[in-house]
Amino acid sequence: METTSATKAGLTLDYGVVRRLLVQFITDEVGSAGFSRGIVGLSGGVDSAVAALLTAEALGKENTIAILLPWRLSSPDSATDAMSVVRQSGIQSETVDITAMVEPYFGLNGSMDNIRKGNVMARERMIVLYDISARERALVIGTSNKTEIMLGYGTQFGDTACAINPLGDLYKSQVWKLAAELGVPRQIIEKKPTADLWEGQTDEGELGFSYALVDPLLYSMIDERRNDEELIEQGFEKNLIIKVRELVRRNQFKRRPPVIAKISHRTVNVDFRYPRDWGT
Amino acid sequence: METTSATKAGLTLDYGVVRRLLVQFITDEVGSAGFSRGIVGLSGGVDSAVAALLTAEALGKENTIAILLPWRLSSPDSATDAMSVVRQSGIQSETVDITAMVEPYFGLNGSMDNIRKGNVMARERMIVLYDISARERALVIGTSNKTEIMLGYGTQFGDTACAINPLGDLYKSQVWKLAAELGVPRQIIEKKPTADLWEGQTDEGELGFSYALVDPLLYSMIDERRNDEELIEQGFEKNLIIKVRELVRRNQFKRRPPVIAKISHRTVNVDFRYPRDWGT
Repeated sequence: METTSATKAGLTLDYGVVRRLLVQFITDEVGSAGFSRGIVGLSGGVDSAVAALLTAEALGKENTIAILLPWRLSSPDSATDAMSVVRQSGIQSETVDITAMVEPYFGLNGSMDNIRKGNVMARERMIVLYDISARERALVIGTSNKTEIMLGYGTQFGDTACAINPLGDLYKSQVWKLAAELGVPRQIIEKKPTADLWEGQTDEGELGFSYALVDPLLYSMIDERRNDEELIEQGFEKNLIIKVRELVRRNQFKRRPPVIAKISHRTVNVDFRYPRDWGT
Repeated sequence: METTSATKAGLTLDYGVVRRLLVQFITDEVGSAGFSRGIVGLSGGVDSAVAALLTAEALGKENTIAILLPWRLSSPDSATDAMSVVRQSGIQSETVDITAMVEPYFGLNGSMDNIRKGNVMARERMIVLYDISARERALVIGTSNKTEIMLGYGTQFGDTACAINPLGDLYKSQVWKLAAELGVPRQIIEKKPTADLWEGQTDEGELGFSYALVDPLLYSMIDERRNDEELIEQGFEKNLIIKVRELVRRNQFKRRPPVIAKISHRTVNVDFRYPRDWGT
């Protein structure tokens, strides 16, 4: 397709360099926070596999903990794929089934739709991951990619919750390439991305468009700051442009801390924001 | 005490003005997010009482939903006090006991300390509050005050989670005064602040100092940017200054979104941050 190839150049990266840069990022950030260990929620998908392998390369396999967080209806393939990463890398792992925690709440709410259930589960996983991180004195390493963050395709205070995120500036197509560079098992790179919350769920089915289409569009829109006319000229469909721009705008709140009403001269996240405001 | 009176002047506000300003803040922010309803987790304490009454004044009692989230060991007084706010204001209310959700996890972890249990509970309450907010199409109104936010005395992704926060720029002593202005029941204003996670827990017991002492110190340190020598001159004890400054610094991460490794020219929360980056 014309569109994709026209903008593909900008998405191209040297993944050897990216790998070194992200390993250094994890080493630096975990160290400066006063930690030596990292913890990753390992789903069986490509993003968390990449985050786990980068963490192992930065901190050592003995300092990298993978937590598997299945529930009753999770596909058994998810755990198999997650464990293939654990075995290959030699990192630590632990499995906590969240079924007993989420089902009492689902039981109170007979008519919950899949979106609400999915958010409850993503947040329940955050609870377990953060609790184990406290027990293990390990920093939570994030797994959200730039496509998800831009589109708001993630649960606030759920799968997006982390201390540091090595993947947040890489689009999904770029994460796949980095995965190949890192030697993530082929089966994980090739399977359809899914949050695995219900049978047959896929990211692309829910979003209504493919990563192969939306990543070049996001790159042109966000990174190159192209306006609608330019995007149409590049071959993107007007309806898709409008839909994607609206998703980015509407989900801005997920990327920012809460808005605090300003009363004083130094309001958190307005005048009191950066660590440098606080000296050294 | 000298210290308190010396800095008390800066903490003084016109609470009639603060009330109007915060009511306008809630009206504006809820409206601009495309909502007309607000939801507050009502604990029985003064902060959530103030947040609920401000929300009711801004959006109307019929558009304000209070959620009570007790667990098995919550003091019955907490629910009584929360319901006194509901009755007085005529707002909507709903109670969801979180015991059945948290106990299965506590059961897996025989040796969890109170801090870990408290964090699990604060986050479980967030799950319920956010789920009901989705069902009711209501925005989550925050209840964290500036003292808590500065000291990091709150659970990340737990009680600090919200869409907008009317109280985040008011120290606890100021929230008490605003509570009186709003007519919060006397019993709530006068009781000892507590997260009510275990029997006998009080904020001041856990922190190791009183709000009456730390609020003037934080005001001098943060709002007036006083250095240690000036603070000692004002009469604050050196050990307290060191302890408080360290708490503020160490908890900076709770006030900020996750750090994303920079790869591109437009990284979320670095170059792509403000709504104004995204046009209108």
